[in-house]
Amino acid sequence: MRDQALAYASEHQQLHIEQLMELLCIPSVSTLPEHKPAVRRAAEWVRNYLQNIGMSRVELIETTGHPAVYAEWLGADPSAPTVLIYGHYDVQPTDPDNEWRTSPFSPTVIGDDLYARGAADDKGPFFALLAAVACYLQSAGRIPVNIKVLAEGEEEVTSTNLPLIVAERATQLACDTILIADHPMATPEVGILMYGVRGNLYTELEVRTLPHDLHSGTFGGVAPNAFNVICQIIATLTDQHGKIAVPGFYDRVRELSTDERALINGGLANEAVVLALTGASALIGEAEYSVAERMSVRPTLDVHGIRGGFIGAGSKTVIPAVAVAKISMRTVPDQDSHDLFALLDAHIQSVTPPSAHAMLRALDSSQPTIINYQHLAVQLAEEAYRLTFGATPLYMRGGGSLPILAEFQQQLRQNGHPVPIVMIGLGLPDDNIHAPNEKLHLPIFYRGITMIIRYFALLGTELAASERLHPD
Amino acid sequence: MRDQALAYASEHQQLHIEQLMELLCIPSVSTLPEHKPAVRRAAEWVRNYLQNIGMSRVELIETTGHPAVYAEWLGADPSAPTVLIYGHYDVQPTDPDNEWRTSPFSPTVIGDDLYARGAADDKGPFFALLAAVACYLQSAGRIPVNIKVLAEGEEEVTSTNLPLIVAERATQLACDTILIADHPMATPEVGILMYGVRGNLYTELEVRTLPHDLHSGTFGGVAPNAFNVICQIIATLTDQHGKIAVPGFYDRVRELSTDERALINGGLANEAVVLALTGASALIGEAEYSVAERMSVRPTLDVHGIRGGFIGAGSKTVIPAVAVAKISMRTVPDQDSHDLFALLDAHIQSVTPPSAHAMLRALDSSQPTIINYQHLAVQLAEEAYRLTFGATPLYMRGGGSLPILAEFQQQLRQNGHPVPIVMIGLGLPDDNIHAPNEKLHLPIFYRGITMIIRYFALLGTELAASERLHPD
Repeated sequence: MRDQALAYASEHQQLHIEQLMELLCIPSVSTLPEHKPAVRRAAEWVRNYLQNIGMSRVELIETTGHPAVYAEWLGADPSAPTVLIYGHYDVQPTDPDNEWRTSPFSPTVIGDDLYARGAADDKGPFFALLAAVACYLQSAGRIPVNIKVLAEGEEEVTSTNLPLIVAERATQLACDTILIADHPMATPEVGILMYGVRGNLYTELEVRTLPHDLHSGTFGGVAPNAFNVICQIIATLTDQHGKIAVPGFYDRVRELSTDERALINGGLANEAVVLALTGASALIGEAEYSVAERMSVRPTLDVHGIRGGFIGAGSKTVIPAVAVAKISMRTVPDQDSHDLFALLDAHIQSVTPPSAHAMLRALDSSQPTIINYQHLAVQLAEEAYRLTFGATPLYMRGGGSLPILAEFQQQLRQNGHPVPIVMIGLGLPDDNIHAPNEKLHLPIFYRGITMIIRYFALLGTELAASERLHPD
Repeated sequence: MRDQALAYASEHQQLHIEQLMELLCIPSVSTLPEHKPAVRRAAEWVRNYLQNIGMSRVELIETTGHPAVYAEWLGADPSAPTVLIYGHYDVQPTDPDNEWRTSPFSPTVIGDDLYARGAADDKGPFFALLAAVACYLQSAGRIPVNIKVLAEGEEEVTSTNLPLIVAERATQLACDTILIADHPMATPEVGILMYGVRGNLYTELEVRTLPHDLHSGTFGGVAPNAFNVICQIIATLTDQHGKIAVPGFYDRVRELSTDERALINGGLANEAVVLALTGASALIGEAEYSVAERMSVRPTLDVHGIRGGFIGAGSKTVIPAVAVAKISMRTVPDQDSHDLFALLDAHIQSVTPPSAHAMLRALDSSQPTIINYQHLAVQLAEEAYRLTFGATPLYMRGGGSLPILAEFQQQLRQNGHPVPIVMIGLGLPDDNIHAPNEKLHLPIFYRGITMIIRYFALLGTELAASERLHPD
């Protein structure tokens, strides 16, 4: 069965690239209202594709935003595990358009690369997962595992409706493992298995000192200035190295085991590499943690901007009454966004002078997620990477946030344990996601399909005994 | 001579108000290019008025910006002093227009008040000075003092061209005292003699940490954030009370004599009054100085705004590469803007971490000015206030800045001493200057003309011996 699928994949590379290019032609920019019909067309394209390759119960799920898509194929052996594939068919906007060398929605192959918005994030890698399913169904008429697919058109707009869908359809979505391909490999040979993400707590801090702005000539020296105060408050949030100085902030940070530390530091991130990548003249962060650790398993605090006051040309001498800072924190297991918000707020109130009123608002939050990387479902993905790319992949915890993971972990459980989420990388670090000239490296795309075919086969045999799926 | 002028003033109040209303009808907003012709029309109106009342050598002085106006009348006794009247006929913009209860350039009398943009700043008070001259010339054909008039149309746009005019025409402008009416009285009875202003040093601090913005998910924890850094730098500039913490900043601040301290604290500003005026819940400032002192004779540091980063709606997780803060300081005698810039820059460089590059730019600066309030020219204005309004005026140093004063003091000197500048108030604190519903309280306008008539008479007799003009 596996070999039939592998042969089919090898013979139909051109078909797969043509199919992907159809999907890439659809300008499914989820954040732009004028592209709303295009996001629906992308959903319909995915629905039709899943129908055509022989999936069942194919459904366009309407939401208050962009539609999602569900499909399943449950014809595997009774003992075979069920894999839930998650992906998204919406894309980022294309601006700045003048920096594209090809038209973003006219997919263009140049050498080994396919250029188009969404090529790497996430239409290409997501389609590789679907194509692997197709290779089995088209060649052998069956798959070694049961497959469910849940795809959405709102990933680039914070997956607004997906948590509702997951909660409402927890029974329908029941599975043994979740498979996602939405991040890069480390190199064209070395894959990355991502087994966790940081959470995010995004806040606005509003400091008000006066009912309205005043003139610094008249009242300078006595009237409290909202910008002076907000800078003083913000300066107390971190030390000079970027370590967070809010009391209690690190209390629930899970310390790394020696094994995990070795795993994380076995990656490619080090000071020289990150200095080169960022262009910074020096890095910040806690001296007692490595660069790789600071980027992925340690919490952070960044100020994104401060609105209010006068920022026009020239020299207006206003004492600003209000300043509003956007401040976010990346959080790590076992920190809880609600607890951190309370800690931050208490600290801010304690350092706010009597001349000012500070109000902290949460704009957005997601919990950090960690998956047991020793789970067999993850280990078998490592084996599939090695069999296909010839190199052992790296294990990483992502520095960014993927709120839907926490939702999956909360809603999709078996025997009281969250279902393991296997995140494989099928892009490259220089794919220009969210930027002009996004591309997909085609050799990785073809090998990715092969790798997933192998992974399904490994899951079907090694994990056939379902009790082995839940060592968590 | 004085009594003829006083009688004329009393009989021609209606004429003076009608003439002022003509000037107020001209929308001479100097900062708006579309109003450029109107500023010229205001200059022409002033020129024509001065010609019509019998002044000589009346001239429209062309500049690269808005024109200025010069005129003189030098027919007084040989021993009589010469008074240089300074004023401006440009006005602030009128926005927010929807908050005006009358049309800003359709002067409207309601009760005792005349509503119009420029009514109090400075067309009304400036015209009161000219009208006093007219009262002498129209009634007696002469004035007890020689008069020179220098008026500009760029005061609201930092008097760009006036320093050049003053420097080029120092001989033409030679005088014994300068008279300005461009600030309020304390109450309708209690005048204010302003004998100094603070200087201003307006800077931009640019902090750069990266060649371009980065994503806080990917690089949060290692990449230096320009906003975190700029807040930490700014927090070192003042202590929690607003006292400036830049080393050496206070070194050249002239300490107050006991007499001057009593004078300044004899005014109306105290904590309760200023709390009510500002609406603040608490005032800031150096505990060892009174509220009145902190507002006028102590230096200040205010942050006006910080541009850069992300301040839109929502939660974009960018690590900003650049932050630019507008920071200004009010300075006091004998501080020097150039010295302070160097001190500030050195301090900022010393607290900037290796991960950031800080660059301080001066946008604008003016030197603080102080006039000897015991000078007879000032004391005679006190007498004129008392004779007219029935109350002894207050002495104040202004908290704001008036860059042209330092220019006058540098260019217009006699026997090596700067010519004394007499600044009288003929408005009210609630005149809404620079705001909607600007007004002039007409009883003060009429009495102002009377007061200036008396002042010229006092100057002509008491100061006829020119050596008495220079005790400085």
